[in-house]
Amino acid sequence: MSDIKTFNVTYELRGHSVGKMRNEVIGRQIEPTIEPEFNMASDEAGFHGGEGTAPLPLAYFCTGLVTCLMTQIRAFSKRLKINIRGVDVTAIIRWQAKSKGRDPYEASPLGFQLDVDMDSDASFEEQSRLLEAAKKGCFIEATLANPIPVKHRIKSNGNFIGVD
Amino acid sequence: MSDIKTFNVTYELRGHSVGKMRNEVIGRQIEPTIEPEFNMASDEAGFHGGEGTAPLPLAYFCTGLVTCLMTQIRAFSKRLKINIRGVDVTAIIRWQAKSKGRDPYEASPLGFQLDVDMDSDASFEEQSRLLEAAKKGCFIEATLANPIPVKHRIKSNGNFIGVD
Repeated sequence: MSDIKTFNVTYELRGHSVGKMRNEVIGRQIEPTIEPEFNMASDEAGFHGGEGTAPLPLAYFCTGLVTCLMTQIRAFSKRLKINIRGVDVTAIIRWQAKSKGRDPYEASPLGFQLDVDMDSDASFEEQSRLLEAAKKGCFIEATLANPIPVKHRIKSNGNFIGVD
Repeated sequence: MSDIKTFNVTYELRGHSVGKMRNEVIGRQIEPTIEPEFNMASDEAGFHGGEGTAPLPLAYFCTGLVTCLMTQIRAFSKRLKINIRGVDVTAIIRWQAKSKGRDPYEASPLGFQLDVDMDSDASFEEQSRLLEAAKKGCFIEATLANPIPVKHRIKSNGNFIGVD
């Protein structure tokens, strides 16, 4: 008899390009609960041919990373009985792009640093234990620590064909 | 003499917890260009003790992933002279959480699928070449393909102490 429990978390999104570099996304969480649709838009700055009508795509990624960890810290503080009144996180997220001649550039991560300031009377050891649990429970950090290949298909003559 | 060029892309964010499970973030891109600050907020659904005042953290992550790739497809279509009039992307992003007894759950990615529909007269081969370049140029896909450890520090008696 096992006491292992699992649940799935699934998101569906549809993105549509508009204007010069703007993208409009409609999405929703469909597991473990169906939540209200969200609408989000990205754009690029004038520097990159965009019109600055919305935040850049990386702003969304960085916000997801920071808030996912913050959520897990608060959620698990109850589970682990390590009391915190609140949490602030400061993040510096750095990438590098490299290009050769006229080729498009290739990107790579340089350094992701998250500084966590818990408003808590818990000891440093307890706060470390809480953060360690939050890192493992954070869906985004877990994805960075144990990534899986992203699969892509291209629509051709009405059918989607895998290209990876 | 090398024709390799590089540039850095850096984001700074500050997240602050408010309410039950809401997080408020102020961030900005500081390299390669300084862009206007963005304000974003996350919350959880009632199911998880939140109040549903803002999208879930994973909504931001998924939007970043989808729009970053869409941006690169349009940006590199010019560079590679593979003309597209627009692009739609449909995504299904799946994780699993697993817990044992009373322990907090641990997360892992299950499947990330992006279906790309380019409005273009370019051949399937040209579209595949464009998508391949976009995947390598997309900062988020490149992070999932070649991740680096996320570093964490905890504030203790006024100093940040590394805990990884």
